[in-house]
Amino acid sequence: MNLKQMAGIEAAKYVEDGMIVGLGTGSTAKFMVDEIGRRVKEEGLTITGVTTSKETERQAQALGIPLKSIDEVPYVDLTIDGADEISADFQGIKGGGAALLFEKIVATYSKQCIWIVDKSKMVNKLGKFPLPIEVVPYGSQQLVHLFEEKGYAPVLRTTPTGDLVVTDGGHYIIDLHLEVIEDPIALGTYLDQLVGVVEHGLFLNIVSTVIIGGENGPETIHVPQ
Amino acid sequence: MNLKQMAGIEAAKYVEDGMIVGLGTGSTAKFMVDEIGRRVKEEGLTITGVTTSKETERQAQALGIPLKSIDEVPYVDLTIDGADEISADFQGIKGGGAALLFEKIVATYSKQCIWIVDKSKMVNKLGKFPLPIEVVPYGSQQLVHLFEEKGYAPVLRTTPTGDLVVTDGGHYIIDLHLEVIEDPIALGTYLDQLVGVVEHGLFLNIVSTVIIGGENGPETIHVPQ
Repeated sequence: MNLKQMAGIEAAKYVEDGMIVGLGTGSTAKFMVDEIGRRVKEEGLTITGVTTSKETERQAQALGIPLKSIDEVPYVDLTIDGADEISADFQGIKGGGAALLFEKIVATYSKQCIWIVDKSKMVNKLGKFPLPIEVVPYGSQQLVHLFEEKGYAPVLRTTPTGDLVVTDGGHYIIDLHLEVIEDPIALGTYLDQLVGVVEHGLFLNIVSTVIIGGENGPETIHVPQ
Repeated sequence: MNLKQMAGIEAAKYVEDGMIVGLGTGSTAKFMVDEIGRRVKEEGLTITGVTTSKETERQAQALGIPLKSIDEVPYVDLTIDGADEISADFQGIKGGGAALLFEKIVATYSKQCIWIVDKSKMVNKLGKFPLPIEVVPYGSQQLVHLFEEKGYAPVLRTTPTGDLVVTDGGHYIIDLHLEVIEDPIALGTYLDQLVGVVEHGLFLNIVSTVIIGGENGPETIHVPQ
């Protein structure tokens, strides 16, 4: 079995009848949404899904999973999502799929978050994966210059055809090539305060469980809170 | 003369040939833009304007002021803008006109900022004027709940016909009714870190000169840096 699929199917076991479930975005989350769709159809599982992107919304609708917006629920019981990098102390980088803003909004209002990854995403320190920053288009070139001066090697994300990527929220993505992030908390606080930055891909102190797909089956780590 | 007009015309005197000038938004800034347009036409003043809203862009274009985006200039020499409230220590609240995001972006890259107000905007402490928060639409109700719990008396801003106000950046505005803001720096830092908050209306440590329209003529205060 594909390692991403293994993690996705394992995570779907945590979904219980009646739950409000945050549905992540990306290649690994896709397997989890498929599996929840199967349980809804074959096992009669009754849940409400809260999606984190238009992409996941389309997938979940096609599978017949009942959906609500994050603004139509009091909270989310459990969010299951992928991650692009997870450090040894369980901080994460997300946003490779450009859905980080809605993913972080849904995660913020979730009682529990499970991240599902294949083992290649587990690292000692964050930073090898480019850190995505979601920014307001107006002034985005100024932010690129600022990040260049800081030595962050910023790149405005483009599509394969060379157009600028526009997120579901109508913003651009700047990827920072940092190699190693020694202090994610300090970097996150700095980025939060920059004018024009809508959100960044550092997901800090937010995950409760990590499920890792590996050759010997899924490994589940409950993160000390 | 109207006190707003008095401040606007006085501020336009600070604009010099060759400058890149940030053009603010609102009823007071409108007089300043009109006066700069007059100087361009009648005095042959040569400047490049950088606008802070679609509204000001339309006004400046009609006046024949050459314009560039904030991303097409290296920096802004001088930005002139209104303010909704200015405290005794020269911190400000802006955003009554829903243009705070682009206003703050332009101000951030400006060497100097002049605020033009009538004397009714000068207060001891900030907070009587509702503090505008520009937020991502997805999750905005969750932020309203959060602000309610904090006792901030939040109101999602609507148009006179009852529709939600959508900013030039495609976001909503939540107005916080705080009455008195004892520590604007701490509040600003808190708001910056909230997921879903794009920007807030606290403009801190940013103004260099305040021009106040009053019955005895314009008063100019150079803010100690």
